[in-house]
Amino acid sequence: MKLQLALDVATLDEALVVSRAAAEYVDILELGSTLIKNEGTAAISAIKATHPGTTVLADMKTAEAGGLEAGLAFAAGADLVTVLDGADDDTIAAAVAVARSHGKGVVADMITARELVARAREVVRLGAEFCEIHAGPDGEAPRGWSIRAVIEAGRQSEVPFSVAGGVDLESIGDVARSGAVVAVVGTAVTAAPDPRAAARGLRVAVDTTIVGGEVPWVRQGRPHGIPSGPGPAPARPDRLADRAPSS
Amino acid sequence: MKLQLALDVATLDEALVVSRAAAEYVDILELGSTLIKNEGTAAISAIKATHPGTTVLADMKTAEAGGLEAGLAFAAGADLVTVLDGADDDTIAAAVAVARSHGKGVVADMITARELVARAREVVRLGAEFCEIHAGPDGEAPRGWSIRAVIEAGRQSEVPFSVAGGVDLESIGDVARSGAVVAVVGTAVTAAPDPRAAARGLRVAVDTTIVGGEVPWVRQGRPHGIPSGPGPAPARPDRLADRAPSS
Repeated sequence: MKLQLALDVATLDEALVVSRAAAEYVDILELGSTLIKNEGTAAISAIKATHPGTTVLADMKTAEAGGLEAGLAFAAGADLVTVLDGADDDTIAAAVAVARSHGKGVVADMITARELVARAREVVRLGAEFCEIHAGPDGEAPRGWSIRAVIEAGRQSEVPFSVAGGVDLESIGDVARSGAVVAVVGTAVTAAPDPRAAARGLRVAVDTTIVGGEVPWVRQGRPHGIPSGPGPAPARPDRLADRAPSS
Repeated sequence: MKLQLALDVATLDEALVVSRAAAEYVDILELGSTLIKNEGTAAISAIKATHPGTTVLADMKTAEAGGLEAGLAFAAGADLVTVLDGADDDTIAAAVAVARSHGKGVVADMITARELVARAREVVRLGAEFCEIHAGPDGEAPRGWSIRAVIEAGRQSEVPFSVAGGVDLESIGDVARSGAVVAVVGTAVTAAPDPRAAARGLRVAVDTTIVGGEVPWVRQGRPHGIPSGPGPAPARPDRLADRAPSS
């Protein structure tokens, strides 16, 4: 299982403070939608330039113009972009086509999904690398999705999925054991008194827990947007190497 | 019925070329989602500074962090922001609360809606000023929604709605007669050989057609983000004045 840090802050300055503190402990750095809308795709370029060895996910949450938006994000330096599950199938397919032409990938953000399991299967069939499912602490989750409910939906869908929302040191073990390919942490790091220490703690938790599934996109040898082939050794082979999922 | 021009281009430079050519003929200037993601909220400020007398809609298509995203857009100069119908009710309510505290408004973008009529009623109950429904030319519409189907859904919903997608000189009369409060035109202007002439033609068509409904938000005397009261006279009283809807 990979560890993704969502830079869910509004300004690039704030994002860079957190990313510089925590990047060495995470596999994927995510620019949140709000950050992108506030600062533009220039923020993607700035994060990628600061962390050239880390996979950068642009949470574009594309709802239309799939090819155009994916192309802008990839041109700016993103390795992965998100498309909303609620977008038209044609929009998702267009983003996937552009991603493939760049040797990069699309993640389906399931935040608008009503029929989570069915739609997760569809978006993966359309070419998404994995689905990001949003959970939350009890009583605060979108549509009441607790981490437990999300884990169950992910399992039922039988497609690669990540879990976002409310993931912290307490819950990340459950996320890993659920078979998730990515655990997305946000405020557990960005709002921590010491983001570096928080990220390190989560890293240790991931590395010492029974691991989840693997990200197909990363497994295909394109961990940093390298178009094809095995390419150069990953920057942090200890953490990017495949791990056989346990039980 | 108001005329909204969607600046569905990727760069601020392109947007300004179109807006300078066409703004005098439209009531609402919309910054498309792709433009905002590419250029950031600075693009909202630039459009508003160039067209201080025109209502500016930021198509944020917010899916989460409703209060935060609306606040950023309003701070940058937007008068209206969009929130996705597929967002959680709490997210929509948070954006509405921030809008009201600024004396501005929220528009619900129905692009992810499956149950269009039912959800349109819900989002208006949550405080959206009106719903933007996406249509398209036959065979190209999202989920097959032709302009005819959208008009029928709008009527059934019995809430204020705008129609976007495929609106041109040929179809704008039908949109006006449907009771829409706003007709959204995009490529009919942005991709025209002469955007100014295209906008002028659409303006004339709107002004000489049986008019649709009225935008509650504009009718409330806040046509340009003026917090309350009648405020200064609108920049173009001939076009912003209320019109009694004709059957």
